[in-house]
Amino acid sequence: MFFSSEKGRMKRKFLGIDIGGTNLRGKIISGQGDTLGEGKIRSDASAGISRLMENLVGFIKEFSRQEISAIGIGVPGTVDSANGILVQGPNIAETRDFPFAQVLSERIGTATPVFIENDATCAAIGEYRAGAGRGSNSMVMITLGTGFGGGIILDGKLWTGENGFAGELGHMTINPSGPPCAGGSRGCVEAYVSQVAIRRIVRENPKLREKFSDVEESAFPERLAELAREKDPAAISVWNDFGANLGVAISILVNILDIRTVVVGGGLSGAWELFIGKTTEETERRCISKAARGLQIKRAVLGDDAGVLGACYLAESGLEENC
Amino acid sequence: MFFSSEKGRMKRKFLGIDIGGTNLRGKIISGQGDTLGEGKIRSDASAGISRLMENLVGFIKEFSRQEISAIGIGVPGTVDSANGILVQGPNIAETRDFPFAQVLSERIGTATPVFIENDATCAAIGEYRAGAGRGSNSMVMITLGTGFGGGIILDGKLWTGENGFAGELGHMTINPSGPPCAGGSRGCVEAYVSQVAIRRIVRENPKLREKFSDVEESAFPERLAELAREKDPAAISVWNDFGANLGVAISILVNILDIRTVVVGGGLSGAWELFIGKTTEETERRCISKAARGLQIKRAVLGDDAGVLGACYLAESGLEENC
Repeated sequence: MFFSSEKGRMKRKFLGIDIGGTNLRGKIISGQGDTLGEGKIRSDASAGISRLMENLVGFIKEFSRQEISAIGIGVPGTVDSANGILVQGPNIAETRDFPFAQVLSERIGTATPVFIENDATCAAIGEYRAGAGRGSNSMVMITLGTGFGGGIILDGKLWTGENGFAGELGHMTINPSGPPCAGGSRGCVEAYVSQVAIRRIVRENPKLREKFSDVEESAFPERLAELAREKDPAAISVWNDFGANLGVAISILVNILDIRTVVVGGGLSGAWELFIGKTTEETERRCISKAARGLQIKRAVLGDDAGVLGACYLAESGLEENC
Repeated sequence: MFFSSEKGRMKRKFLGIDIGGTNLRGKIISGQGDTLGEGKIRSDASAGISRLMENLVGFIKEFSRQEISAIGIGVPGTVDSANGILVQGPNIAETRDFPFAQVLSERIGTATPVFIENDATCAAIGEYRAGAGRGSNSMVMITLGTGFGGGIILDGKLWTGENGFAGELGHMTINPSGPPCAGGSRGCVEAYVSQVAIRRIVRENPKLREKFSDVEESAFPERLAELAREKDPAAISVWNDFGANLGVAISILVNILDIRTVVVGGGLSGAWELFIGKTTEETERRCISKAARGLQIKRAVLGDDAGVLGACYLAESGLEENC
């Protein structure tokens, strides 16, 4: 009996999908963690939720030639994972309190369970299980993309909070009188440490502004990194501040939670060597020494794979909890 | 068999002790939570650890006419609870990495297990089990005393962190360029929201300074509250800032952890009506709306009893884990 159920378990296949602004990325893994297939199509997320659903259903059906046990999806936005609801998806037009998992299940038309989570949370699960956080007990992952995202794993378990919205790390205040945030707050860490922040900082800097006049806003971070590598003092100074502010945020997390592993990923982590020195310095200065005992700030290793792999693990763990 | 063990369990008695700067307070509770005895003696903590140990041993022996199943102690300082070590006790002279639980056990000379925790953490356990946090699932308690202490309970369990030092809430940075802190950091919330902070703020305020010339520093908060109740604008303004800064700290905690219950206690919570309006306002402004869903900021109800009761529960839960 045990053997047969164990065998059934091993035969399971999990489909993970990461919804990006540009692409849907999918991966199937086996119960042993081997990759059995992967793919990518356009997401058209900005065209609205119904177009996105259509694309998702088509994408999932392509994969479904294989028998899928559960589907996990990383969604950009605020997710009520317990109820499968996309509460707010700023990059998916007209989306508020959308019963994502239920609608998708109905559209797929099979009994395959669907689990959703915030995309940065999925990336955290991915790095924890198969990346830079492997072997750690507790971990915080910070994703430096357009915004400042996060995921918290405590004692081997995702901490989702009482409403399912934990890990909104970008909205930590690090300077009460800092720049305004869309939500009405001021001085959130996201206003200092994110792609959006870099765009603002460059635009406001008279020494840098002109050097970016022919650069698309989305390419600002890359250009800023190039300039710093060419020893441009103004660019170096921006990365120093970026690193120090990231350190302030990490010290807040460590003083509160006393976790030993902080993983930093997302597109901006490509500029790692330009900011990490200041990050470490500032973290150490601001942590009470004992809480920082054994602390490691690690660079994420899975890149874009973290989110889609995390979505696979989400499917797996969702299924196990529901079995 | 079940009945007899259940009966044995119910017959257990737990001694909790709270080590204050001035007094040792003790309480015995039954397995059903009834108070079976209590007492208080001078702690002489400032005279150093060996004098404190002597006082503790005498105090415990007095209680020991009753048969105690386990002892829980709330200690002012950084505590490695898993190993029973007082890592740092700034208010107990010459104390660093002191094997508190072991030494005390040897001095008592019985097999009664001894568990220790940080005193603010004990207060959090007390309020969670028997006070303002009763019935909540997750809770953060903030203790506004000489410093800014805290305790975190997630899903019914104390979160102590990977080294046992979680909940150092006072060292959250809320303003990177703020006043310096003894540990080398700047702009910790403790530098704005604590008794020590109020002393500094009053001394630096030309409109208030003179009104405090005949007041002992330890009585500054009380005098400041009196002045605010008499409508002194400078005093009102200090409490407004105090409240707003507390709100910044609470918003950071809620954005990270998505907990619905925040309990605020400690001596300074006596000025509740002078700061709580601004605290609520600032918290709401800085929390992403969804994480703040259902959030309640509650005043602690157990007063000085929170710590000693929490120490009793610490003894109880320590024993159960070890059984």
